[in-house]
Amino acid sequence: MGIPGYEFGTIMKKFLKAPNIPMQSDDMEHKKEEDISEWYNELVELAGLCDKRYPVKGLNIWLPYGWKIMQLIDAKIRKMFDDTGHAEVCFPLLIPENEFQKEAEHIKGFSAQVFWVTHAGENPLDIKLVLRPTSETAMYSMFSIWIRSHGDLPMKLYQIVNVFRYETKQTRAFIRVREIHFFESHTCHADAEDAERQIKENVWIMEKLGSALCLPYILHKRPDWDKFAGAVYSLGADLLIGEKTLQIGTIHQYHENFARAYGIMYEDRDGSHKYCHQTTFGLSERLVGAIVGVHGDNSGLILPPSIAPYQVVIVPVPKKELKEKIENYARQIYEALNKEGIRVHIDLRDLRPGNKYYDWELKGVPLRIEVGQKEMEEEKVTVAVRNTKEKITLAKEKLVSDIKSLLDAFASQLYEKARKELEENVHFINSIEEGKNKQGILRFNWCGKEACGIEIEKRLDVSVLGIPVNEKSKHGKCIICGAETDIIADAGRAL
Amino acid sequence: MGIPGYEFGTIMKKFLKAPNIPMQSDDMEHKKEEDISEWYNELVELAGLCDKRYPVKGLNIWLPYGWKIMQLIDAKIRKMFDDTGHAEVCFPLLIPENEFQKEAEHIKGFSAQVFWVTHAGENPLDIKLVLRPTSETAMYSMFSIWIRSHGDLPMKLYQIVNVFRYETKQTRAFIRVREIHFFESHTCHADAEDAERQIKENVWIMEKLGSALCLPYILHKRPDWDKFAGAVYSLGADLLIGEKTLQIGTIHQYHENFARAYGIMYEDRDGSHKYCHQTTFGLSERLVGAIVGVHGDNSGLILPPSIAPYQVVIVPVPKKELKEKIENYARQIYEALNKEGIRVHIDLRDLRPGNKYYDWELKGVPLRIEVGQKEMEEEKVTVAVRNTKEKITLAKEKLVSDIKSLLDAFASQLYEKARKELEENVHFINSIEEGKNKQGILRFNWCGKEACGIEIEKRLDVSVLGIPVNEKSKHGKCIICGAETDIIADAGRAL
Repeated sequence: MGIPGYEFGTIMKKFLKAPNIPMQSDDMEHKKEEDISEWYNELVELAGLCDKRYPVKGLNIWLPYGWKIMQLIDAKIRKMFDDTGHAEVCFPLLIPENEFQKEAEHIKGFSAQVFWVTHAGENPLDIKLVLRPTSETAMYSMFSIWIRSHGDLPMKLYQIVNVFRYETKQTRAFIRVREIHFFESHTCHADAEDAERQIKENVWIMEKLGSALCLPYILHKRPDWDKFAGAVYSLGADLLIGEKTLQIGTIHQYHENFARAYGIMYEDRDGSHKYCHQTTFGLSERLVGAIVGVHGDNSGLILPPSIAPYQVVIVPVPKKELKEKIENYARQIYEALNKEGIRVHIDLRDLRPGNKYYDWELKGVPLRIEVGQKEMEEEKVTVAVRNTKEKITLAKEKLVSDIKSLLDAFASQLYEKARKELEENVHFINSIEEGKNKQGILRFNWCGKEACGIEIEKRLDVSVLGIPVNEKSKHGKCIICGAETDIIADAGRAL
Repeated sequence: MGIPGYEFGTIMKKFLKAPNIPMQSDDMEHKKEEDISEWYNELVELAGLCDKRYPVKGLNIWLPYGWKIMQLIDAKIRKMFDDTGHAEVCFPLLIPENEFQKEAEHIKGFSAQVFWVTHAGENPLDIKLVLRPTSETAMYSMFSIWIRSHGDLPMKLYQIVNVFRYETKQTRAFIRVREIHFFESHTCHADAEDAERQIKENVWIMEKLGSALCLPYILHKRPDWDKFAGAVYSLGADLLIGEKTLQIGTIHQYHENFARAYGIMYEDRDGSHKYCHQTTFGLSERLVGAIVGVHGDNSGLILPPSIAPYQVVIVPVPKKELKEKIENYARQIYEALNKEGIRVHIDLRDLRPGNKYYDWELKGVPLRIEVGQKEMEEEKVTVAVRNTKEKITLAKEKLVSDIKSLLDAFASQLYEKARKELEENVHFINSIEEGKNKQGILRFNWCGKEACGIEIEKRLDVSVLGIPVNEKSKHGKCIICGAETDIIADAGRAL
């Protein structure tokens, strides 16, 4: 009945750190509005998403509930990339030093944060190996073999693997870790035009994904000093967790940069040999972090139905002598929903219903169905909606379609609430002074020069996110040098 | 229409090594009956399963078709373990040296074949890290935190990850590689009895999996000198590829060995503290190798329907003026099958039908549907069955149920053929002399002593696989020392 391992029952409760966690109350120790950082840290543990006690810093253990959420996100991503003609591959983890060092900018960007394998068994390796921090340097010498003619293009591949970066900053579950569950697509094109078309497709996929996960974001063209190592330009999708920014996806235009370093060429129709143009798209377990941070409240997670391991949990509220009948009624409900592909679970643990309610609220299940004597006799169910906490009575008769509508409405509300919060936290500032007490995203006129950008970062203790590509330009004066400009840029402080 | 990237069309053909591969003939360069080793190597490349040209030995690239097969196998395995109450986790890749070295036998077994991470960025690490060769030593210190009381038991977890072993022998795609796609379940129990019950469950799952993949095998209790490092005993599932043996799954009973080393204890009902008993179950990408080697023939792969990326491929055979009509007819067939959950694909590439036939034979698609003018006019289809190469005419009317029956029959035939081949290649020998010219699996009476076992291995150049646990014992004399015994044992030569 449902997927095992999500109940606290046998397994999950032992994954929880503190024995005296307030499971009897719907309030967490840390409040989202008071200390979002500690609230976040508390919640990822409380909800059984990951365990941070593994004996190497920044390497966390995915627990069953967290891992299932990640897998459901991966499935969404796979479908979107399969549907747009990408094929999935899986490249080796280990990259030989000489391959890794072919593209100068790239090695400069990553060399300080790679793990090195230097020995096997008792013996030093002839050629040292890098744990992939990203897979350009693993893939591209193979691309130079695979691609021969214009007929091979475009070539669109992706993989979902773990990558490794030796983070020196404070680590944070799903957001800044050293082993990262990672998605990367790599495409090769005949010319700049087709590579630009791919960037548009990537932007479109990012939109669809943001929508599926109820995660509104602002797409920025990164400033030159913050683009990906080896890229011509980079786009980043940024959202807010509380008042801190989080990058949840990146899209890079490489043009011929890597193709020249790795010799990725094709024979064109006229017999000439040309370098390929390349793009990449990166996503990661940060999507889980974003879902936790954007949607969660002081009662726990709130999961978008698209990736909730259980979209509906049924809790029977039995009277002693009616226990069996009520549980049978609950099973009928289960069967009806399960048959229609809704991810549903019955909670038959030997716990008081109230405890079960808190559990499933903590775990962010969108809809909880309560069935007791009254519901059974009237052929109804009571539905508790996780985000609004309202309770609704539905007739059993048309339950499936009503539940589907509720799940759709749930997703829309979640998205809309997050969109509004994001919008309200973008502040246009006309001077550095104005920005000093503002949180969230700061928007301002910028001349576009790096010197002014760096100055802004210093004086406001922010990072420049770049130019918001879907916003209208606005005439004004650069808030540093005062030059007339139509460019607006955003900045913020990373979580 | 279908999953992209499996056709040779745009992408796949460039993954092929040789430009002059005999795609016009249904014969491979190497014949299975003549040189199974070279036949296997040729086939994994020809069929686009993996690319072995990655610049580190023993690290291969999973190509889209091979990776999809692996993912379908993973999905089968996940379902079986979820259904038996296991929960999926994902542990970090990197294991600190001190954790790795807690269980003496285990470290002795693995230390010669682990990769060591010694540096991050420019700096040496304080504690060296091992790339997991298996995850006992990553998991068990966490188990000692998670498990507190008898109520936490049994705890049944699994993960699907890549593991790393520095193979010094000749590598072979899917069968002996240095980065291994790996399944591992780890269970903890209150006592030896419950751990034995788990072993039985594991044996039962192995049987179900072998049946789903049409892979009959012999289950052996490994001799003591070949059990897993740290185990009390090990069971191995062995099959034959040609006349060579291949281990496709292992089940280990640890009892308290690891629990003592890692302090995995629980409080029993009476307040006493006891060590857990543990078991593991390991599977790997060798399952792909076994499917290639056991079922394939000189025309290519033959895939069990349960894990075939396409169970049915439709090839329209168009006459010029009827092209559109015939393709529409093909689409109707596609829709009917797709709607019923059959993995089906239409091949609309601009190639001659004959070339398409060879392609899909090479890729092992169980059923190929040909539709031309005749089929369209008579509301029929022609079905070519991959394993028998027979052609069958089916009426469109009851196509779905007929195709389902054909797929079921296909799977049964595949299993039965392999079972018969395995059975025919088990040879009972009464003396060392008798074994000298025999291939396949050699079965003999054995006194059970290690010295005699080692002597058999030396004199026949075989490995002792162990005692076939589902075979009846047989009275006789040990073929080395002549002692009376009821034990029979098997031996063979590994691929």
